[in-house]
Amino acid sequence: MPSTFGNTLKVTVFGQSHSTAVGCVVEGLPSGHVVDLDALNAFMARRAPGQGSWTTPRKEADLPRIVSGLNPKGATCGAPLAVVIENTNTRSGDYDNILAVPRPGHADFTAWAKWHGNQDVPGGGHFSGRLTAPLCAAGGIALQILAKQGVRVAAHLASVANVDDEPFSALDNSPEAQQRLAAQMDALADGRTFPTIDESAGTSMLAAIDEARRSLDSVGGIVECVATGMPAGVGSPMFDGIENLIARAAFGIPAVKGLEFGRGFEAARLRGSEDNDPYRMRDGRPTPTTNNAGGALGGITTGAPVLFRIALKPTSSISRPQQSVDLTTMADAELEVHGRHDPCVATRAVPVTEAVCALVLLDALESFPAE
Amino acid sequence: MPSTFGNTLKVTVFGQSHSTAVGCVVEGLPSGHVVDLDALNAFMARRAPGQGSWTTPRKEADLPRIVSGLNPKGATCGAPLAVVIENTNTRSGDYDNILAVPRPGHADFTAWAKWHGNQDVPGGGHFSGRLTAPLCAAGGIALQILAKQGVRVAAHLASVANVDDEPFSALDNSPEAQQRLAAQMDALADGRTFPTIDESAGTSMLAAIDEARRSLDSVGGIVECVATGMPAGVGSPMFDGIENLIARAAFGIPAVKGLEFGRGFEAARLRGSEDNDPYRMRDGRPTPTTNNAGGALGGITTGAPVLFRIALKPTSSISRPQQSVDLTTMADAELEVHGRHDPCVATRAVPVTEAVCALVLLDALESFPAE
Amino acid sequence: MPSTFGNTLKVTVFGQSHSTAVGCVVEGLPSGHVVDLDALNAFMARRAPGQGSWTTPRKEADLPRIVSGLNPKGATCGAPLAVVIENTNTRSGDYDNILAVPRPGHADFTAWAKWHGNQDVPGGGHFSGRLTAPLCAAGGIALQILAKQGVRVAAHLASVANVDDEPFSALDNSPEAQQRLAAQMDALADGRTFPTIDESAGTSMLAAIDEARRSLDSVGGIVECVATGMPAGVGSPMFDGIENLIARAAFGIPAVKGLEFGRGFEAARLRGSEDNDPYRMRDGRPTPTTNNAGGALGGITTGAPVLFRIALKPTSSISRPQQSVDLTTMADAELEVHGRHDPCVATRAVPVTEAVCALVLLDALESFPAE
Amino acid sequence: MPSTFGNTLKVTVFGQSHSTAVGCVVEGLPSGHVVDLDALNAFMARRAPGQGSWTTPRKEADLPRIVSGLNPKGATCGAPLAVVIENTNTRSGDYDNILAVPRPGHADFTAWAKWHGNQDVPGGGHFSGRLTAPLCAAGGIALQILAKQGVRVAAHLASVANVDDEPFSALDNSPEAQQRLAAQMDALADGRTFPTIDESAGTSMLAAIDEARRSLDSVGGIVECVATGMPAGVGSPMFDGIENLIARAAFGIPAVKGLEFGRGFEAARLRGSEDNDPYRMRDGRPTPTTNNAGGALGGITTGAPVLFRIALKPTSSISRPQQSVDLTTMADAELEVHGRHDPCVATRAVPVTEAVCALVLLDALESFPAE
Repeated sequence: MPSTFGNTLKVTVFGQSHSTAVGCVVEGLPSGHVVDLDALNAFMARRAPGQGSWTTPRKEADLPRIVSGLNPKGATCGAPLAVVIENTNTRSGDYDNILAVPRPGHADFTAWAKWHGNQDVPGGGHFSGRLTAPLCAAGGIALQILAKQGVRVAAHLASVANVDDEPFSALDNSPEAQQRLAAQMDALADGRTFPTIDESAGTSMLAAIDEARRSLDSVGGIVECVATGMPAGVGSPMFDGIENLIARAAFGIPAVKGLEFGRGFEAARLRGSEDNDPYRMRDGRPTPTTNNAGGALGGITTGAPVLFRIALKPTSSISRPQQSVDLTTMADAELEVHGRHDPCVATRAVPVTEAVCALVLLDALESFPAE
Repeated sequence: MPSTFGNTLKVTVFGQSHSTAVGCVVEGLPSGHVVDLDALNAFMARRAPGQGSWTTPRKEADLPRIVSGLNPKGATCGAPLAVVIENTNTRSGDYDNILAVPRPGHADFTAWAKWHGNQDVPGGGHFSGRLTAPLCAAGGIALQILAKQGVRVAAHLASVANVDDEPFSALDNSPEAQQRLAAQMDALADGRTFPTIDESAGTSMLAAIDEARRSLDSVGGIVECVATGMPAGVGSPMFDGIENLIARAAFGIPAVKGLEFGRGFEAARLRGSEDNDPYRMRDGRPTPTTNNAGGALGGITTGAPVLFRIALKPTSSISRPQQSVDLTTMADAELEVHGRHDPCVATRAVPVTEAVCALVLLDALESFPAE
Repeated sequence: MPSTFGNTLKVTVFGQSHSTAVGCVVEGLPSGHVVDLDALNAFMARRAPGQGSWTTPRKEADLPRIVSGLNPKGATCGAPLAVVIENTNTRSGDYDNILAVPRPGHADFTAWAKWHGNQDVPGGGHFSGRLTAPLCAAGGIALQILAKQGVRVAAHLASVANVDDEPFSALDNSPEAQQRLAAQMDALADGRTFPTIDESAGTSMLAAIDEARRSLDSVGGIVECVATGMPAGVGSPMFDGIENLIARAAFGIPAVKGLEFGRGFEAARLRGSEDNDPYRMRDGRPTPTTNNAGGALGGITTGAPVLFRIALKPTSSISRPQQSVDLTTMADAELEVHGRHDPCVATRAVPVTEAVCALVLLDALESFPAE
Repeated sequence: MPSTFGNTLKVTVFGQSHSTAVGCVVEGLPSGHVVDLDALNAFMARRAPGQGSWTTPRKEADLPRIVSGLNPKGATCGAPLAVVIENTNTRSGDYDNILAVPRPGHADFTAWAKWHGNQDVPGGGHFSGRLTAPLCAAGGIALQILAKQGVRVAAHLASVANVDDEPFSALDNSPEAQQRLAAQMDALADGRTFPTIDESAGTSMLAAIDEARRSLDSVGGIVECVATGMPAGVGSPMFDGIENLIARAAFGIPAVKGLEFGRGFEAARLRGSEDNDPYRMRDGRPTPTTNNAGGALGGITTGAPVLFRIALKPTSSISRPQQSVDLTTMADAELEVHGRHDPCVATRAVPVTEAVCALVLLDALESFPAE
C-alpha cells in the first residue's frame, strides 16, 4: 500500500490511529527555509481535537517533532524532512467491537475485504482522521515557503448542515473583488476559532452541529479553499494539471466525496458565453476579468485565484444503532459506535484542506513551472 | 511535461491537434488478451466527430493502428502496446489568429504563459479534445479485459442544458435497484447514437444543443458513469484510492470542472444517519444495502457499483465575439473564433469517461487488489 | 510491464523486433529546441545494422518519424515527443524454432517463464536490440540539447576480444589531460566508421570479430563513455544520483553485465590516499585534480568528466549447435540458431551508450540541478 | 531531493548523520508478516559500528523503533511501516573544519555545490554511512519475508586489500555447485563476526585493514552477494529488470563504484560459446546448467542464483593530510580529517548489500511476478 503524493515535492504519510506514532516524510522541499516552529504549531493547533463542543474530546498534544531535514541553523537542508508525532492518548478498548462488526461509512469493512484480518482496525488504522496531523505538519511548512513567494492560501467552511457562509470573492477577478477576497482572507487569519468568514454563519453552524450531536447524529459540510498569488503558467496539461493534482490529494482527506473548481457543477448548466472568462490587459499583463475557471485552464494557472470546494460527508461515527454484519459469524448484526468522534469532520478539515492545497501548489511550482 | 497516468497499468498520451499523429502507449496490460478490433473501432466511433448536428463537422477516420504490444496471434504479449492514429484532416488555417489572441476558456493563454511561444497552438495543441481519441483506444481495450472479469462500465449524459436524464439506479443497492441498473446499462449499449437512458430526454437535449449552436453559443453537461462487478477490497487508502485515481484521470478530460462520487455534494447536506450505508449479509457476503458512498470507502471498493458524475463546462469555442488580448501587441483585442467545434463537449465525453473509468479500475485491480 | 526511465525527462520505449513499428515517447524535453533532423539521422546511422562485416546483414532504413511534440517551426513544444520507426524488414521465419527451443543467452526462456506463451518471441520481442533504435532517436535529440548547454558526450570501444583501445584521458583531471580528452572526442567525431580512438586497435578488433564470426562464434566488449561540461552540483544523494540513474538505464541496453565509474573495480584494490581526488582552485573554482571518482561524489557531479564503462557479454546468437530444451515436449533438445546477428554487439552499443548517457544527464540537469 | 526506491515495495530513507534520528518508511510490504524483532536486531548488529578494530569506534545502540505499520499482533497490517532510529552519539565538533574545507572523496564539496551552504555537513549529512542503518532495518524485514517464500540471501567480502575470499559457488549451476553454495551460505550464517567464507582469508584481511589504519590510510573491497530460491520469470525487460533494480539501489550504498552480474566484466573477454548458459531439463523444469548470466536474462530471473559483486572504494576519511580548498576564502588549503571512521567500509557494507538485495527482490516478486 502506497501512501505518497507529489512529484518533486513528495509527501509520504505513515501511522495508524493507535500506532506508536504518526508522521510523514517530505522529500523535495527547497533548501534554505528556516522553519518557524511557532507558526507551525499554531497551524497544527487549528486541526487538533479537543477545541470545543464540535470536535472529539480526544486530546493530543500533536506536537510535531522534526527529526531530520534541517541543518544546525534550523533551515531545510535538502535532505528529506521527517516529522514524528507520538500517539499519546489511545483508547483501543473503545474500538473492540468494530474488529468484528464494521462501522457503516467507515473503511472497516473494505479494509477487512482487502487485508482479511491483517488490517489494524482500532480507530480506523491508516484511514483515521489522525493521519491528517502529519499532512498538516507538512502543509504548514509548505505554507511558510509559499508565503515567501507571495502565495497565500485560505479555506473556510462554506456550508455546514445547510447553513452557508459568505463565499470567497473569487469567481469575479476585478480589482474590487480581489480586494474583498484579501479582506476575507485577513479575517479568517485573525485568530477566530471557528473558520467562517461571516461569524454569524459560524454561530448558526455551531448550533446545528450541537443539535446533531444531541440527536446522536452528525452533519456534513463543504470547505472552500482559495490560493492567491500563483503566477500564470504553472502546471501541466492532461494528468498533472493543477486540478488533477489537487483532486488526487484532496480525495485523500477522509470523508471527501466531491470536488469542484471555479463554477464547478454550476458550469454544467451555463452557456459558453456566460462561463468563458474574458481577458483584458491589466498592469501590463493579460488577466482574466472573471474566474469561472477557478484559476486554471488546461491544467495550467491563469494567474487568477485557484479556487475549489470539497464536499465532506457527515461523520460516519454516530451513536445511534446501525445495521451491520458480524465478520466472524457472517451474520447480520446491530452496531452501536462508542468512542470519541466529531459530529462534523468538515470543521477540522479546513486547515487540512489548506495544507493539501499548499503542498500541491508548492509541488506544481517546483515540478511544472513556467519555462 | 508529463502526460501519463496509472500505476501498474500506465497510459502515456502523445500528439497535438494538428501534429502528424496522436496516440498512446499502454504499459502493464495483462498478457494473453486477444484484442477485438471490431469492438474497439465501434467503441471509438462513439467518440468520433461528425456524427450529427451536435458534434463538430470535422471528420477523422480515427482508425487506431496498434503498432506494438501484440503477438502474432493478436494477443497482448506483455510488451507496451502502442497505438498511432494519424491526423488526416487538419486545417491549421482556421486557427491562425489564435496564435496572437487567446480564446477565452481554452488553454491558449496558459500555454503561452508556460512556454512563451514554443507551444503548439493550432487547435489546442496537446490540450485538444483530439487527445481523447487515444484515451478511448486504450480504454476500449481495458473495457474488453474488464468484461472478461465481470466488470461492466457505462456512462450517460445525466444533464445537458438543464435537461436531465434518468439517473443510474445505483445509489440504492437493493437487488431490485441492481436489476434496474443492469437494464439501464443494456439500454445504453443497444446502439443508440445519443447517450441517454431516457430517449425523450435525449431528444430534448439535442434540441437545446441545436438552439445553442444557432445562438452561436454552447452548453455544458454532466456525465454520470457507473461500473458494476468490482469485487470488494480493491484500492488503497489515502492517495491511491479509487476516488483519487479516478479524480486524477478524470480531470484530464478537457472541460471537466467537477467530480463527485455517490451522493457527492448532496452528502454534505445530509446527516450521518441518512448517508451511512448499512450492511446486510446477501448471498453469503457482507453487502451495503445502499450506495451513497458510490462504491468505495477509504479508497477501497465496497462491492457496490462505483458511481461518479463529472461536470463539463460549456464548449469554450463559441462563434460570438469575445474580449481577449493580443499577445504580440499586449493590447486588448476582440476575438471571433472560427473553426469547427462541438456546441456541447459533454456528448462526446461519454465514451471518454467510460474509457478513463475502465483504465483506472483495471489499474486498481492490478495494482491494489485484495490481498 | 513498464518500459520507462527518467524523472522529469522520461523515455518510454515500445515495439518488438517484428512488430509493425518500434518507437518511443519522450516526456519532459525542454521546449524551444529545433530538432536537427540531419544530425539525428546521422547519429542513428551509427547504430543501424548493415554497415559492415561486423554487424548483422539485416538492413533497416531506421528513419525516425517524429509524429508529435514539435510545433510548426520544428521546435519542441512542451508536449510529448513521439517517434515511430516502422519495421520494414522482418523475417519471422528465421525464428520459428525458437518458439519451442529457447536460445541460450537470450531472454526466450525467461519471457516464456514470465508470460507462459503469450510473449512475442520472434527476434527477441521487446528484448531485441532493435529497441535501441528508438533509444538512439531520443538520445540523439538529448545530445543536441546538451550540446547547447556545453555538455558533450562520447563513447568508444574500450576493449573487444582482448584487444584494448586507448582509454579516455579522464581519470586525470589536469588541464593537459582535459586537452587530450577533447582531442580524443574530436577524433571519434571525425566520421570514422569504427568507434575506437586508436584506429589500429580498431583494425585488430575487426579482425578478431571476423575470426569469431568465421568460427560461428561471437565476442564481447567494453564500451567506455565520457561526458564533459557537466557543472558541479547536479544529481541527488542515495537513489537518484548520477551513478544510480546511469546504472538503471545502462542495464537496459541488451547484453550489459557490468558497469563501473571512474576507477571502478580497480578502486577496490587501492588505498584511500591513492583513490581520493584532491581539490585545488582552478579558474576561481574548486576543482578535483584527479577523477578517480568518475565525475560524481554522493551522487552529485564534481565538475570533472562523468566517466563510466559498461561490459557487454558476447552476442548470444551463435551459429554453433547448443544445448537447450523443448518447451513443448519438456525434453532436452539441441539448437542451431539461424537468422541474422552481429558477432559483436558492443560495436553498435557505442552510440546507444551515448544516447543513454545523454538522456540521463539531461534528466539530471532538469530534475536535480544545483539549487 | 528524493530518497526513495522501489515500485510496489518502496523504501524512503530519511535522516542525516547528526540529525535527531534516522529512519525509513516502507510502503507495500505484504500484510500478515509478524516481524521477528530479535532476528531484526541481530541482523542490524552486523552493520553496527564499534565491533572491532576494523570499524569506527562510534557506538550506537542502533535499535530500530517500529512506530507504525504493525497491527496489535505485531504483524504487518498493510499500512506503511516506519522505523525511527535515534541518533544518540553525535559529536559534531569533530566535523567543524569540514564546513569550510571539503574532504576529498566525500560529498562535502558536491553538496556545497548543490545547496550552496544550506546542506547539513556534519558527518556527511544525508550521505552518511549512518543512513545504511534504516536500509538494514527495512532489508532485515524483507529478508524475513523472503525466507518464508524460500528465497535466501547472503553476502561476503570477496576481496579486501588484494586478499581474496573463496567466491560463491554460483557461476556453475550443477547440483553439486548448488550444494556447495548452500554450505557456504550456512557457514556465513553461523555467527562469525567477520564475513568471509574462508576464515583464513578473513584473518588476512583484518591484518591488512589494521595495517592500513596504522598507516593512517584505508582500503577498499568487493562484496559478493547471492540469492537462491528465486523462481524463474520474475522481473521485467529494459529498465525494470533484476539488474536495473539492483543497480539503481546498490549505487545508493556509499562508496560503491562498480557492479557486475554473473561473469560481469570477465564476460566481455569471453566468446559466446563460453558465456552462454545451456539449458537442460532438471526435476521437470528447464534449468540453466551454468550461471554466467548471474540469474537473469533480459531482466527476468532464470531460476539460477542471482549473483552480483559490488566494488567499494577505500574509505574516503583518512588521517593523512590531504589537498583541498577553503570554500569560504576560495583558496587552496590542507586538510586533516579527524573524527571516527572505518578504515574499510566494505566490511559493514556486507549486511547492507544483503538488505538492498532483499528489498529489490521482494519488490520484484510483488511488482513483476511471473504472470
